[in-house]
Amino acid sequence: MKTITSISKMQEFSRQLHAGGLTVGFVPTMGYLHDGHLELVRRARTECDTVVVSIFVNPTQFNNRDDFEKYPRDLIADSAVLEHAGVDVLFSPEASEVYATGAATHVHVAALGDHLCGPTRPGHFDGVTTIVAALFNMVMPDVAVFGEKDWQQLQIVRRMARDLHMPVKIVGVPTLRESDGLALSSRNARLGEKERALAPTIHRALSVAVDAYHGGEKQSSAVLARARAVIEETGAFRIDYLELVDGEALKPVETANDGSVVAVAAFLGGVRLIDNVSLARPRALDASSGADIRMRREDAHHA
Amino acid sequence: MKTITSISKMQEFSRQLHAGGLTVGFVPTMGYLHDGHLELVRRARTECDTVVVSIFVNPTQFNNRDDFEKYPRDLIADSAVLEHAGVDVLFSPEASEVYATGAATHVHVAALGDHLCGPTRPGHFDGVTTIVAALFNMVMPDVAVFGEKDWQQLQIVRRMARDLHMPVKIVGVPTLRESDGLALSSRNARLGEKERALAPTIHRALSVAVDAYHGGEKQSSAVLARARAVIEETGAFRIDYLELVDGEALKPVETANDGSVVAVAAFLGGVRLIDNVSLARPRALDASSGADIRMRREDAHHA
Repeated sequence: MKTITSISKMQEFSRQLHAGGLTVGFVPTMGYLHDGHLELVRRARTECDTVVVSIFVNPTQFNNRDDFEKYPRDLIADSAVLEHAGVDVLFSPEASEVYATGAATHVHVAALGDHLCGPTRPGHFDGVTTIVAALFNMVMPDVAVFGEKDWQQLQIVRRMARDLHMPVKIVGVPTLRESDGLALSSRNARLGEKERALAPTIHRALSVAVDAYHGGEKQSSAVLARARAVIEETGAFRIDYLELVDGEALKPVETANDGSVVAVAAFLGGVRLIDNVSLARPRALDASSGADIRMRREDAHHA
Repeated sequence: MKTITSISKMQEFSRQLHAGGLTVGFVPTMGYLHDGHLELVRRARTECDTVVVSIFVNPTQFNNRDDFEKYPRDLIADSAVLEHAGVDVLFSPEASEVYATGAATHVHVAALGDHLCGPTRPGHFDGVTTIVAALFNMVMPDVAVFGEKDWQQLQIVRRMARDLHMPVKIVGVPTLRESDGLALSSRNARLGEKERALAPTIHRALSVAVDAYHGGEKQSSAVLARARAVIEETGAFRIDYLELVDGEALKPVETANDGSVVAVAAFLGGVRLIDNVSLARPRALDASSGADIRMRREDAHHA
């Protein structure tokens, strides 16, 4: 595996691949990799000749300095994990090169950030779209792969790529879950033992919403009330939002349908967890290999 | 010369060129071509293997519907001119494909649009940066060439490309002028005979500013007063702005220096003309070939 930190070297490498008729698949990440990321890598591999994974903890998408500083980082272990996964290039640019002095450009997608994570994370999605646009320019991929766990992010990136005619195919990959339903997330590492035991409540609440919908309840407020009750029953969460929205427009709908998504963000201790389910596709993948990557992470540090 | 209107076909063509190891030079235009545009084409030719010229009258950068509708158009003649100039591809996408239903994405460069054309053309530069970013994604150029006549636009595009790490080299080309000093512009076609005779006053005023500076006057207000007097003497113009700014930051400076630019926008009849000069480089190119292209434009319609 090649490791590249220079932006111009990354562009040069991609140019050479394209000049050789090879395609580039790209998985942008903030590191502290888990099997959810590796699922994205596997998907990129099926789509393209070459797979590039970026690791960049992007300061501009954190609206909270504390969250940025506490975001888990482990480049040594991540590098070993990617090497083992057969990734061709690990791209980890420096923040000082990504954001040059006097940087003044933002990419903004209107409307899609008005609900869900938008209101409580001001500036977050502008940070995301701007860094994703920049990373696309650095990596010049043919295909870019994103997880559906960040459903709103995926829809916003899709819209940006479509509106600006980016020559990149955007692929979404279903959320990988632990066997108890908890969506894989780098933030899970920050959960204490007690919190970890409670965390699957979020997915259980979403499943209750899906069951209610498939059981005949179409009124959004009623569907959401069932899910909310499950979370509140524990007394452990502070709900940031729990909404039933159109899966593409990301606007709340009064009447649920197969195109709807139920999305939730909730604080458990100091950790903000998000998750979502499509009402059309209730079944989730099971991350049976979750233990493997944790073992590999420990190995990397002992090696 | 190949003419392409489909965005995906344009991308496919550029991909093929890159896969063959060829570079793409790009000149984005709004058509109604004059020798200033051909100067950009010549520059693109010296930089790249293949030259693509786009013609797209971009509705979102006109803050005035009337100006958009009155913007001169002549695709038949333009096509003949580009063919004669040895251009490889004329790319003229449809507005309905460029701006899909539900388009919600904007690229914004902060601060650089605060002065000069910014205040009186709200939304103009967001329209420019958004379409230029999109055209770059459609054409996938290695080099893009812009005229210095639109100095503010050039600086904003440069900043955008730098900030978003676009894999495109931005090249600026000095303004081409008629022998009487008038900067070549598609809008000149809308000037009546009397207005055409008065139009070079703008460049004369800028030259007076340059002479004042090189004659030892460093105070911006004094330099500008000299230029303003030249324009106001005619009683024919309504000045939109006349400013002396830093050539990169585009902010007014109190004391002029070699990095300063004097820029002006003024209405003559119903036509808004803009021009600028760098204090460091007072000499302008002379468009001695201006008559040729007008002849070719007439030929194209008679052919």
